[in-house]
Amino acid sequence: MEHRNATAAVIGAGDYIGAAIAKRFAVEGFTVFAGRRNGEKLAPLVADVEASGGRIFARSLDARKEADITAFLKEGDQQAPLEVCIFNIGANVNFPLLETTERVFRKVWEMACYSGFLTGREAARLMLPHGQGCLFFTGATASVRGGVGYAAFASAKFGLRAVAQSIARELGPKNIHVAHLIIDAGVDTAWVRDRIKEREGKGALNNLAPDRLMSPGAVAEAYWQLYRQPRDAWTFEQEIRPFAEKW
Amino acid sequence: MEHRNATAAVIGAGDYIGAAIAKRFAVEGFTVFAGRRNGEKLAPLVADVEASGGRIFARSLDARKEADITAFLKEGDQQAPLEVCIFNIGANVNFPLLETTERVFRKVWEMACYSGFLTGREAARLMLPHGQGCLFFTGATASVRGGVGYAAFASAKFGLRAVAQSIARELGPKNIHVAHLIIDAGVDTAWVRDRIKEREGKGALNNLAPDRLMSPGAVAEAYWQLYRQPRDAWTFEQEIRPFAEKW
Amino acid sequence: MEHRNATAAVIGAGDYIGAAIAKRFAVEGFTVFAGRRNGEKLAPLVADVEASGGRIFARSLDARKEADITAFLKEGDQQAPLEVCIFNIGANVNFPLLETTERVFRKVWEMACYSGFLTGREAARLMLPHGQGCLFFTGATASVRGGVGYAAFASAKFGLRAVAQSIARELGPKNIHVAHLIIDAGVDTAWVRDRIKEREGKGALNNLAPDRLMSPGAVAEAYWQLYRQPRDAWTFEQEIRPFAEKW
Amino acid sequence: MEHRNATAAVIGAGDYIGAAIAKRFAVEGFTVFAGRRNGEKLAPLVADVEASGGRIFARSLDARKEADITAFLKEGDQQAPLEVCIFNIGANVNFPLLETTERVFRKVWEMACYSGFLTGREAARLMLPHGQGCLFFTGATASVRGGVGYAAFASAKFGLRAVAQSIARELGPKNIHVAHLIIDAGVDTAWVRDRIKEREGKGALNNLAPDRLMSPGAVAEAYWQLYRQPRDAWTFEQEIRPFAEKW
Repeated sequence: MEHRNATAAVIGAGDYIGAAIAKRFAVEGFTVFAGRRNGEKLAPLVADVEASGGRIFARSLDARKEADITAFLKEGDQQAPLEVCIFNIGANVNFPLLETTERVFRKVWEMACYSGFLTGREAARLMLPHGQGCLFFTGATASVRGGVGYAAFASAKFGLRAVAQSIARELGPKNIHVAHLIIDAGVDTAWVRDRIKEREGKGALNNLAPDRLMSPGAVAEAYWQLYRQPRDAWTFEQEIRPFAEKW
Repeated sequence: MEHRNATAAVIGAGDYIGAAIAKRFAVEGFTVFAGRRNGEKLAPLVADVEASGGRIFARSLDARKEADITAFLKEGDQQAPLEVCIFNIGANVNFPLLETTERVFRKVWEMACYSGFLTGREAARLMLPHGQGCLFFTGATASVRGGVGYAAFASAKFGLRAVAQSIARELGPKNIHVAHLIIDAGVDTAWVRDRIKEREGKGALNNLAPDRLMSPGAVAEAYWQLYRQPRDAWTFEQEIRPFAEKW
Repeated sequence: MEHRNATAAVIGAGDYIGAAIAKRFAVEGFTVFAGRRNGEKLAPLVADVEASGGRIFARSLDARKEADITAFLKEGDQQAPLEVCIFNIGANVNFPLLETTERVFRKVWEMACYSGFLTGREAARLMLPHGQGCLFFTGATASVRGGVGYAAFASAKFGLRAVAQSIARELGPKNIHVAHLIIDAGVDTAWVRDRIKEREGKGALNNLAPDRLMSPGAVAEAYWQLYRQPRDAWTFEQEIRPFAEKW
Repeated sequence: MEHRNATAAVIGAGDYIGAAIAKRFAVEGFTVFAGRRNGEKLAPLVADVEASGGRIFARSLDARKEADITAFLKEGDQQAPLEVCIFNIGANVNFPLLETTERVFRKVWEMACYSGFLTGREAARLMLPHGQGCLFFTGATASVRGGVGYAAFASAKFGLRAVAQSIARELGPKNIHVAHLIIDAGVDTAWVRDRIKEREGKGALNNLAPDRLMSPGAVAEAYWQLYRQPRDAWTFEQEIRPFAEKW
């Protein structure tokens, strides 16, 4: 592996998509800065990346705290110039309207939207002096559709999409590539498999058609392709879903 | 004027659109509940409505406080069953990304999105037992477009649109008509006239083409027409703009 | 009934929506020009309108023929200035891709899109010298969604929507109100009732919940409200659906 | 170069985007079938591809003729299984509404939409028995926006997008990857450079900022990346534009 003098930060480095993104950029020689609420949970990811010769730093991070975001990204930028920053915090909840408490509504927004704004702004602050950078945001079906029970989650995801659009229009001409990747399907996680078992019975998991669920690695690959786009043909938004998904 | 046994609540009863909506429903015989931050500023509206035989109650209201919203709507519903609730709080600001403070981002969201969620939920709680109701939200160009400098405002307006969609899908089948009216143009207010003077010079205001700006009354009329739609042909979303507007 | 010196033309004056629109504008005093392929089928509509004191002219019309459209609208404009023109031709078909013949694809386009372009252009040609006019197009779910089996129909409806948008942007500033009304549900017609019987059994029709289907009159009412909009708050697009419809 | 046993067909193999796509897939070892109205104009492309060891067949093709499309694709499929088919015919024209003749409207549709439908259907017919395939369509800004003067072009491009959507929903589950690539900017062609010279003067071309225009090669690269997507994360739609483009 050839190392680059560049940092890729992943905010929301969960066990699935976030970890896959971290590995994808590490394997390309980036110094990876991975942040999540409980940084200790990053130990397996760190072990993996380091075993294959990659560089990674794991940090505990409350992305709802401006000072945390600022410090995290600044530290990353000090290791090597911050070239890529991917915001990947989700907060998928579903409640009937009358049972959606103000606390849930606010918390989901803080996690999935407000943190994304802080991340985008602080990453931009570091990238602009470098004259380049990639700022990517993970979207979902709920980024473009307010379904039943999703008042809180869709509101946050719609809001994040607006943040991404606004930054893209302002900073594209300054050579910052902003993109919003809409994941329009269930990703293959323990949580999604549990939902399938609940809805369709235990057998469903054994008979799961190949590629019915999106693998975290495929999401990471989509981000990698966005990173590699030449600047005369940048994508702001694209959606991905498995081949057999209904939409 | 024939009075109805029905309340129309306007949250965000500012001097222009909000006041026009209040008058439009008052003139149709509704008991109007008008709320804004500083309720004393509602005195001219109250005088107007009462002079023409209408019923109106003016209240100070911080729509970002759950208890305020709940109390306001409950009081309205006690006067007469809450049939119409219109959320009309705006918070239009424009800042370059790096100058958008976390305080601005949060405050704009609290005013334009979070308050809208509280309003929708609490109005629904009162309307559902009545078996009917209309819940309308004022949108803007920024509800569907994240333009340069609008990270905060567009994020809040996108978020409000998601809330409206989600409630519409959940409560439509329960006979609550939810609509999102996108105002895709400048409304004729002192603030907009000042912006035109700034950009185009003093003369521009004198030469303002008739109907170039949307009158607050026309917005109120659009809401009235939404109210009157038969339930076999409800609109969730429509946009309005003056005839000569570029879009 | 007070007569106006104004013509409302309905192209695609079928037994349901088209007829309802014709009646709605007739009852407001418009001279109605109603065209459909087989003009003889308009006899009951003519009888209805005339019985209630309205003015109506029924014509056979192949809307895919430029000369027919031109002659029809010109004749209408000679009776009284053409103020309203509503294009209402549908061509809803569903075929698996491989069974969609080129003949079907072309014919559906000619009926639902090409005819709409001719109608829009020829109506505009007459309205522009009058300095005003309303040009409305009936859309459908398929105007914004290309579902399975709808390659032909959705392609034509998407295409019609583009025509409407383009004309709206060009002629709005010239005081021509162009609107595109998306009917996002089944309308109460014999054909739709047959589909329900097929899918859900005979009993379904007897137990049809009130307002589950959209009445043609409600569509006509939506057009009437569009007509009445003040020009400082015109709607280009709105969708309508029954309260209990899933979307 | 390692040859694959697979054909990539390009319908609308013009001098810029089409040629770049042909080269991109040839260099990856595909047998390329390139079709355009006047097949003789493909001589330089053929020479280029063959010089670098690629395989290419050039054919004259009127894509508006069902028999031509069928024969072209079948011949390609006989050389090697048809795996990729890219429809790339444009027909960008701009006329004021009243000057848009029915001949122009029909011809633009036949070139940009009807041909695309024939291509999609006939390619699918060949790919389905192979159990796989990629069917890509070139879109434009006018695929999602009906601007002034674009009644004909936008109508055709909207229509093509509907075709692509409908096929994607039907054939995705059958392992056919359908995508619609929206080119939201001017591509670097002689025609676009002439327009810039006209609008901005001769000097503008010399001072053209690097990457202001999208290179045909970047479009081809976007298609290549779509081809390479794993089937658990397919994109249906994405847009591309140069970094400094306003949108």
